[in-house]
Amino acid sequence: MIEFPRPDVEQYFTSYNISDFSVSPDGRKLFFSTNLNGKVNIWAMDTEDRYPFLFAEKNQGTNFVKYDPAGRFVLAGYDSDGNENFQIYVIGPNGGIPQPLITGEPDEKYYFAKMSEDGERIYYNTSKGNESYLNSKVYNIETDEHELLFEGDDAATYIQDVSSDEKHIAYLKMYANTYMLGMIQTDGAYEYITPNKNIVHTVWDVSFINDYEVWFATNYDSEYAYLAKYNISDKEFSKVMDFDGESVTSVTFSKEKNKLYVVTEKGVMDKFYYYDLGTRTSEMIPVPFESIDQIQAVRTGAVFVLAGSAVSPFNIWRYDDDSWEQLTKNKVLGVTADDMVDPETITYESFDGLEVEALFFRAKVENDNGYTIFWPHGGPQAAEKKSYRAMFQMLLNRGYNIFCPNFRGSTGYGTSFVKMVEQDWGEGPRLDNVEGIKWLFDNGISSPERLFLVGGSYGGYMALLLHGRHPEYFKAVVDIFGVSDLFTFYNSVPEHWKPIMERWVGDPERDIKKFTEDSPVTYLDTMTKPMLVIQGAKDPRVVKKESDQIVKKLENAGREVEYLVLDDEGHGFSKKENEIEVYKTKLEFLEKHQ
Amino acid sequence: MIEFPRPDVEQYFTSYNISDFSVSPDGRKLFFSTNLNGKVNIWAMDTEDRYPFLFAEKNQGTNFVKYDPAGRFVLAGYDSDGNENFQIYVIGPNGGIPQPLITGEPDEKYYFAKMSEDGERIYYNTSKGNESYLNSKVYNIETDEHELLFEGDDAATYIQDVSSDEKHIAYLKMYANTYMLGMIQTDGAYEYITPNKNIVHTVWDVSFINDYEVWFATNYDSEYAYLAKYNISDKEFSKVMDFDGESVTSVTFSKEKNKLYVVTEKGVMDKFYYYDLGTRTSEMIPVPFESIDQIQAVRTGAVFVLAGSAVSPFNIWRYDDDSWEQLTKNKVLGVTADDMVDPETITYESFDGLEVEALFFRAKVENDNGYTIFWPHGGPQAAEKKSYRAMFQMLLNRGYNIFCPNFRGSTGYGTSFVKMVEQDWGEGPRLDNVEGIKWLFDNGISSPERLFLVGGSYGGYMALLLHGRHPEYFKAVVDIFGVSDLFTFYNSVPEHWKPIMERWVGDPERDIKKFTEDSPVTYLDTMTKPMLVIQGAKDPRVVKKESDQIVKKLENAGREVEYLVLDDEGHGFSKKENEIEVYKTKLEFLEKHQ
Repeated sequence: MIEFPRPDVEQYFTSYNISDFSVSPDGRKLFFSTNLNGKVNIWAMDTEDRYPFLFAEKNQGTNFVKYDPAGRFVLAGYDSDGNENFQIYVIGPNGGIPQPLITGEPDEKYYFAKMSEDGERIYYNTSKGNESYLNSKVYNIETDEHELLFEGDDAATYIQDVSSDEKHIAYLKMYANTYMLGMIQTDGAYEYITPNKNIVHTVWDVSFINDYEVWFATNYDSEYAYLAKYNISDKEFSKVMDFDGESVTSVTFSKEKNKLYVVTEKGVMDKFYYYDLGTRTSEMIPVPFESIDQIQAVRTGAVFVLAGSAVSPFNIWRYDDDSWEQLTKNKVLGVTADDMVDPETITYESFDGLEVEALFFRAKVENDNGYTIFWPHGGPQAAEKKSYRAMFQMLLNRGYNIFCPNFRGSTGYGTSFVKMVEQDWGEGPRLDNVEGIKWLFDNGISSPERLFLVGGSYGGYMALLLHGRHPEYFKAVVDIFGVSDLFTFYNSVPEHWKPIMERWVGDPERDIKKFTEDSPVTYLDTMTKPMLVIQGAKDPRVVKKESDQIVKKLENAGREVEYLVLDDEGHGFSKKENEIEVYKTKLEFLEKHQ
Repeated sequence: MIEFPRPDVEQYFTSYNISDFSVSPDGRKLFFSTNLNGKVNIWAMDTEDRYPFLFAEKNQGTNFVKYDPAGRFVLAGYDSDGNENFQIYVIGPNGGIPQPLITGEPDEKYYFAKMSEDGERIYYNTSKGNESYLNSKVYNIETDEHELLFEGDDAATYIQDVSSDEKHIAYLKMYANTYMLGMIQTDGAYEYITPNKNIVHTVWDVSFINDYEVWFATNYDSEYAYLAKYNISDKEFSKVMDFDGESVTSVTFSKEKNKLYVVTEKGVMDKFYYYDLGTRTSEMIPVPFESIDQIQAVRTGAVFVLAGSAVSPFNIWRYDDDSWEQLTKNKVLGVTADDMVDPETITYESFDGLEVEALFFRAKVENDNGYTIFWPHGGPQAAEKKSYRAMFQMLLNRGYNIFCPNFRGSTGYGTSFVKMVEQDWGEGPRLDNVEGIKWLFDNGISSPERLFLVGGSYGGYMALLLHGRHPEYFKAVVDIFGVSDLFTFYNSVPEHWKPIMERWVGDPERDIKKFTEDSPVTYLDTMTKPMLVIQGAKDPRVVKKESDQIVKKLENAGREVEYLVLDDEGHGFSKKENEIEVYKTKLEFLEKHQ
C-alpha cells in the first residue's frame, strides 16, 4: 500500500485569491480578479464551460471589474503595488493590456461608481481637486467630456446609484464608519433619504428600483441595520423589514425577479435572504457557505455571489432556479475541508460584564503543538468571521490553536457595540482582549509560556499595545502593519479618511492624554518579548513610518526585533511570492520562539 | 468611441503550455501539466465543470502523468530543472506534494511504461545499472519489490505495452531514430514482431488488443509507416492498412469502441483516423486542429487529445459521439486566431533536384517590418509543422516574416527523406537551407540586408554552420542550444543516446574528415555577424559546453556575441519568467541589428 503523508504546511501556500468579479448581463461571461499566475490579474470564463483564461494583464490589484452592458469593453480599477490610488482602465472585448480611460496623476484616485444602461456614461468619484471630500463626475465616452455632478463639502461623498433615466443620483456621505448619510440629487437639488441627518446612523447600498424609489440598508433609529425605502415623489422614508438581531450588510436589486437580495450578519455568520417586491414577503435562502463578499444579479434572473467559509476559500457561485452551483474551484492543494479546522464560537464575559464572542480554532490532536495564537482582528470596526484565511489553516496544520475575539468595536453585534471603539482605541477593546486571554488561561488551553500574539492593521496596533502593557502574557509577538503611534497615524492616513478621524479615533490636541495612553510607543520599556514586524512599503492606511519608528526604537533599546518590508505591497499581500515569504517568515519566527 | 490598440507583442508572453495529460477511466477527471502558475505543475479538472485546480506542486517538468485505474493515486515523472533525469513520483487522490515512489540517485532515469489493470504493478525502465541500454522492470506496490524483466543489451530497450494477463510484454529496441524493432517477451523467450530484424526499419506504438495480438505502426518494407499487426499464437506479421503517402505516427487502442485511433502525418499536417477492428474499415475523422501531440482513449469510449494549430496553442479536446469539445482554453491574452498568421505551405527545388517543403509565415501588412527570419528546425529528424509557437506569432506581430524549410532529414516525407540527414549533418541539409534562402531572395521576399538566422538544437547547429559557411546571407544570428562541435557533441550526449550516434551522426574516428567539415567551430573565422547564443545550463542533450566553447572562441576573436544562460532550464524553457526573458532578449537583439 502507498501511504500518503498528512497535508504539509506548504500546501496552504497554494490557494489563490478571487476578488472583484463582474458578469455579463446574459450571465454567460464571468470576469474576476485572481493571483492565479502569481500576480493579481483579471481572468475570464464562459460560464458554460468554466475554463478560465487570462483576460487582462497589468500585474496589479483591482478594486472593481465591470462589463459594458453592450459588450464593447470591460472597465477595471487598478492601483499600483497596493497604494490604493485606484484609477479606471478599459480593456477590449477580447481582452488584452488595460488602457487608461479615467486616470490622472499617480497620487490621484478615480473610483468607479456606475455605468449608464447603454454603457455610454461612466459615473465616478475622484480625489482630483478635492482630496478630502471627493468630487462626483460623469464621463461621456462619445464626447470624451467629464461633467462635475457634486463637489463633496463636509464629508467624503460617493455616488451609490443612478436612476435608469439618469435624472436622480444617490450619494453616500461618509462622516464615519458609523455615520453615513444617503442623499438624492435631482436637478441640482438634494434631499436626504432618512428623516434626520443629525442623528448618527448609517445608510448604504442605495438602489433605485425604479425612477422614483430607492431601497437601502440603514440603522436609522435602530440597533440593527434593516431594509428601508425612500420615495422621491412624496419624500417618504419607510422602514420595511428588520431581521431580528441581524444587521443588513448588503442589498442587491434584481429587476428581472423583482426582488432584493439581502445579506445580513450576526456575529461570525452571514445569512442570505430575498425580499420579493411584488408579494412583499421575504425568505431566507439556504447557502453552502458562511461568508459573503460580493453579489451581482443579472438579466436572466440568476445571482452571482463571491463567498467562502472558514474551511473553504472564496469562490464564485451562481444561484439560479433555487439552487447553487460553484463556478470557480479555488482550493488548497490536496487539502479537503475535512483536513482543516472549523472554528467553535465561544462567548466570555469581559471586565465590565459585556459579552464578547470569539472564534476558537482548535488544532487537531494529531497536529497540536501545545501553543495558541491570540489574534485581535483588524478594522477595528469589522469582525473575525467564518471566512477563509490561509494563514490560519496553515498555523493550525503546524499545531497552533487560534483564538479570535470580537472585542467591542466589532461589527455584527449591533450599533452600540460598534461605536464602543470610537475615541477609545486602547482601553475597552484592550481589556476585552485581556479577558479573552484569561479565558484561555482559565480553561487550561494556554498559558503565558504557550501563547503568541499576532495581529494585523488595528490588530497589529492591538498586538503592540498588549505587548507593551501586558508583556507577561506572551512568548513573542507578530505585528503586521500595525499603528504604533496614534499621533503620527492621525496625520498619515489618506486625505479622504481625515474627515472621519475625529469621530473614529479622537482629536490629537483635545485628547492628548488619551492618545498618549493608547499609543503603543508609550510602552516601549515593557515591550520586552521577541517581535516580528511586517509591513508593505506602499501601505497608504498604516504607512511604513508607523512600523519603522517602533522597530528603530526597539532596536535602539536592544530588543529582539525582526523586520520584514515588502517593497511592492500595500495594506495586504497580493503577490504570491510575497504572500509565501510572509507565511514562511511568520512560521519560522513562531517556531524559533517556542 | 473607445479605440483599442492592436495586440502588443507582450501579450504573446502570456500563453501557457499544456503537456502530459491523463484521464480517469470514467473520463471524469483530467490531469495535465501546465505552467499556469509560472512553473510546470500538474493541474486537475472535473471534465463536467472544467475549472482547473492545482493538483500537485513540485515546480518541475513532467514526462508523464497517469491516473491509477482504481483511483487511489496519480503517478507522475519529474526531472530537475530540465535535466531529463525523470523519476517516478506518486500523489494522493486529492492531490498534494508528490512523494518519491520509483526513484534513485539524481543522475538516474526511471521511465514509466505501463500500469497493470488493477494498478498493483508498475512497469518501467531505468538507467540504473545499465546506462546505455536500460533495464526493464516491474514494481509491485503490495510487496514493495522490483523484478528485473529484461536487461537491455545491444540497444536502449523500452517497455511498450503489457498484455492484460501480464504474460506478454512488448518492447521497443532503439538502434536509431530510423531503426527501432518491436519484440514480444513471453516466459523468458523473445520474438520480433516484424519479419526481418536486420532490415533497417521502425516499429512503434505497439498495443495489445487482446492477449495474443499486438497492433502497431511500422515502415517495414515501405516508404511510409502503416498499420500492422502481429499474432503471437501463430507468429504472423501482417500489414493491415496504409494511408496513401501519409506516415502513421501514433496508434491508440480503444477496447470499448473496438477501434484503433490512428494519427498520420504528411508534411506539415497531421490527420486523424479510426480503424474499426470489427468491420475492418477505416475513416478519416475531421478535426478542429492541425497538430496532434497526445491521445488517450477511456472506458466510456471517449477519446482525449492534446492538439493545436499554427494559430492556436495546444489544448485538450474530447472526442465523443462524433463531435469535438475543447476542455481547456489555453489562449493568448486578448489575441484571436484572426490576429495571428497562418502559414502558407510552399515548395522549392533543392540543389540536387530534391523537392523541399517549407512553411512561410508572412507578416501582416500593417505589422510588416521588411525583415525575414530563417528558421531551420531542430531534430533534425522532426519537422516544422502547423503547430503553435508563441515565439513565431510574437515575431510576426513585430513584423518579421518567418521561413521554415523542412530540409532533408525531416519527418513527414517518407523514410528515405528522413534518412538523408544520417551521417550527413552538415552538407545536404545545409544546401537545402541555402536553396531556401535563395528562394526568399529570388522571390523578392528578403535580401542579405533583411535576413536573420534563428535556430534551436539541430536548428542552432545549422544556424552556426550556415553562419560560418555563408555569413554573407545574414544580418545577425541567434543560436539556441545548438551543437557547435560534432566531436564534443558525440561524447556529451546522454548515455542511452550513445548507441544510436553512429548511425545518426557518424563515427568520430572513421569520419574525422566529415565531422570536421560539418562542425560549426571549423568556420570560426567567417562567423563575422552579430550573434546571440541562448543555453539552458541543465541541458542534457546539447550540453552547455557546446555553447560555452563557441562563445568563448568568438569573444577571443573579438566578435560581437551575446550569451544568455538560464541556470534552471534544460533543452527548452519551461519556467514562465525564463521564457519571457528569452523572448525579450531575442526581440531586443533582432531590433538592435535591424
